[in-house]
Amino acid sequence: MATYMTVRELYEGVYSKSLQDGMKVEIDGWVINNRFMGKMGFINFNDGTCFKNAQLVYDDSFADFEVSEKLRLGCSINIQGILHVTLDGRQPFEIHLTKLNLIGGVDDTYPLQKKKTSFEFLRTIPHLRPRTNTFRAVFRVRSVLSMAIHEFFQNEGFVYVHTPILTSNDCEGAGQTFQVVSDISHPEEYFGKRVTLTVSGQLHVEPFCEAFRDVYTFGPTFRAEKSNTSHHAAEFWMVEPEIAFADLYDDMDLIEDFLKYITKYVLANCPDEIDFFDQRIEPGLKEKLNNFVNKDFVEVEYTKAIDILLEAKKNGHKFNNDNIYWGLDLESEHERYLTEEVFKGPIFLTNYPKEIKAFYMKQNSDGKTVAAADLLVPEIGELVGASEREADLDKLTNRMKELGMDVSSYQWYLDLRRYGSCPHAGFGLGFERMMQYLTGMSNIRDVEAYPRTYKECDF
Amino acid sequence: MATYMTVRELYEGVYSKSLQDGMKVEIDGWVINNRFMGKMGFINFNDGTCFKNAQLVYDDSFADFEVSEKLRLGCSINIQGILHVTLDGRQPFEIHLTKLNLIGGVDDTYPLQKKKTSFEFLRTIPHLRPRTNTFRAVFRVRSVLSMAIHEFFQNEGFVYVHTPILTSNDCEGAGQTFQVVSDISHPEEYFGKRVTLTVSGQLHVEPFCEAFRDVYTFGPTFRAEKSNTSHHAAEFWMVEPEIAFADLYDDMDLIEDFLKYITKYVLANCPDEIDFFDQRIEPGLKEKLNNFVNKDFVEVEYTKAIDILLEAKKNGHKFNNDNIYWGLDLESEHERYLTEEVFKGPIFLTNYPKEIKAFYMKQNSDGKTVAAADLLVPEIGELVGASEREADLDKLTNRMKELGMDVSSYQWYLDLRRYGSCPHAGFGLGFERMMQYLTGMSNIRDVEAYPRTYKECDF
Repeated sequence: MATYMTVRELYEGVYSKSLQDGMKVEIDGWVINNRFMGKMGFINFNDGTCFKNAQLVYDDSFADFEVSEKLRLGCSINIQGILHVTLDGRQPFEIHLTKLNLIGGVDDTYPLQKKKTSFEFLRTIPHLRPRTNTFRAVFRVRSVLSMAIHEFFQNEGFVYVHTPILTSNDCEGAGQTFQVVSDISHPEEYFGKRVTLTVSGQLHVEPFCEAFRDVYTFGPTFRAEKSNTSHHAAEFWMVEPEIAFADLYDDMDLIEDFLKYITKYVLANCPDEIDFFDQRIEPGLKEKLNNFVNKDFVEVEYTKAIDILLEAKKNGHKFNNDNIYWGLDLESEHERYLTEEVFKGPIFLTNYPKEIKAFYMKQNSDGKTVAAADLLVPEIGELVGASEREADLDKLTNRMKELGMDVSSYQWYLDLRRYGSCPHAGFGLGFERMMQYLTGMSNIRDVEAYPRTYKECDF
Repeated sequence: MATYMTVRELYEGVYSKSLQDGMKVEIDGWVINNRFMGKMGFINFNDGTCFKNAQLVYDDSFADFEVSEKLRLGCSINIQGILHVTLDGRQPFEIHLTKLNLIGGVDDTYPLQKKKTSFEFLRTIPHLRPRTNTFRAVFRVRSVLSMAIHEFFQNEGFVYVHTPILTSNDCEGAGQTFQVVSDISHPEEYFGKRVTLTVSGQLHVEPFCEAFRDVYTFGPTFRAEKSNTSHHAAEFWMVEPEIAFADLYDDMDLIEDFLKYITKYVLANCPDEIDFFDQRIEPGLKEKLNNFVNKDFVEVEYTKAIDILLEAKKNGHKFNNDNIYWGLDLESEHERYLTEEVFKGPIFLTNYPKEIKAFYMKQNSDGKTVAAADLLVPEIGELVGASEREADLDKLTNRMKELGMDVSSYQWYLDLRRYGSCPHAGFGLGFERMMQYLTGMSNIRDVEAYPRTYKECDF
């Protein structure tokens, strides 16, 4: 009687020595590769439970030899065989086949063949690319990273809030939002008003921090930007925690703990996948991530950063945009100079001019800056945007009026400052940007299951 | 020096006896109630970390007496005080105040007052209702239930897939879908085609089970139904796992394990909240849930169920719809009769007529039925819909043609049957329906943070 197992259980059992050499096992899975050499055949086999393949071995005396010999990449099979533990070998075990059933074949139209296929081509077949090494690694990391996020917050006592996708309160102006209609000729019929897809859960999660103290939202958000770059998508996921009785420095501590926790979690739970990315996608990735979890994040005030950039310019450093002044919304080259050349690691840039930041940020006593912090990271640029929120009703209302906002439609949000207000702070992490940082995948389309971008929404 | 703590830490520390009677503590939070009787004042206090309140005590010799006496429900305060452990008392501890600072006041326009407010009224202030007992309980359960779902699947080795919200492949016909546009006068400009909000992640998650074996999606889904009932919402969350090399019976085992796990998890992690629902919302709830986790789910074939219903009718049971025949899509009263009168517990109704089920379900060899299973539960009706999927390319294609579907736009989905196909199965759980089952809250609007229904999308 064969024991039904998965490839993951085989690896775990062989390494922990809980499986007996010579035992009979049964597995279902897919053929990754099938080579016949001399009298011996070798099938690389994967059932999706583990990044690593299992090796199946057969010879020409095998009863199902004819089927085996013809197996193509991609076939699904059910096998039985004898486990041979080979801890000193190239792989820690092999299965010597005693039985093989073909479940689902493939013909020669199968788009995934042994030859290397480009990421561009694989984007045209998002339903098949998870079967390749790269995307099997990407999407397992995506799952593990999601779990890391939930574990961190739940362990810390945060309450997960499902902020709405549909909203009549659009936080950042109409230009970049998608509108939602049930009948195109009567766009406001269903809800009785204009409804859009959320661009951020922050405004909707803030009320919950005044009930539960520490909360987070983690879900899809949408921007209708018409840009076709490697880091913009129309649909992407955001992580947005909000903490009460907390200032910007509590927030920055939370960010550092959080990012280090989720990075360590992925390193610990996806070692094979990270090795793969380190070898095939971004050489040096593991070292980068190990530095990231071990290095202290440094705080640099915006004003100080401008001084540093002006000094660099004076000393002959060439910036494409060398019009550097207090008030400038820093560009990628400035951020990279600071993280890569000056501080050689992640920095929190803090206390930005209020003009270049959002209306809800706490106004500092200097009258010029707000209690905001962006986490800048070498190569990536901004990874996290954070701020303490303005908790004072009058200051917040005045700022909204200065900016010409329709204060009447934000009365519910202002209620938080009217009734039992408290200092609170939060941040936003673009989940896909974190995925790109952890995997080295340079295009956002390659870390999403079915990427949606300008002019692209197939399937 | 006072030790900064949360209410949860106080309860845990007092029960585990790790906190010293007489220690000095500091806490931030909100006033739930403030009574002054004779020379003593009592503040019920909550900081959101715990369903239970802490009791703060002061007398008229207290330095901040004047502030304390005037504190209204909803004020946020920072306090210091001495911990008095009273394990034999009505509550296990009190804090005798030594210092009190008002952080954020409230005026008499605050909509939450001591008098009982209706759920209908509270729906008009979704940003404030999480501060009430009922909604503090609901939204913590929602968070804990979400985590239970992730823990179950991740412990079982499932990969979490973020299936897309935006799709050009609308699974169940255009009538009940929302369309997404960036420019109402050029609705297809942004994506170059008609794009809608997903009604289910199933078709998009299936390809991942042919790569990772066991996968799940958990995210928002949308229906533009124009019905105004207590169990329909335009936006709601679905849990949809998909398992490869599995038939309907593997799927039913998974459903039973899963539902019992998440229910036990909520019972174990939200005991105070469940007690509250049992006492205030649905008397008998705890007994119902304990039965649910302890009782075996019974399988009843659809054909057998029809026989039972016909027999009941013959014996004089009155159904509003008594036109009972093989092929009938059972109505709620029929389902309730089966679960409440006949089997007195959850049942899997299996092998439905193919005419009343979806195109992708595996066709049984009788030519008439499909390998579907609905889990029916007393009072609620259908909790889960499950099926084995048709893995045979020809059978699936023929069924789609019979139903007049546009086969050409499903070629990617058919590829799963073309290349390395395998038996696979899955199910869908409406997350809000599970929330209603666990809390006894009878209206779906009361288990969503910001409910969106026909004609309702405020905030």
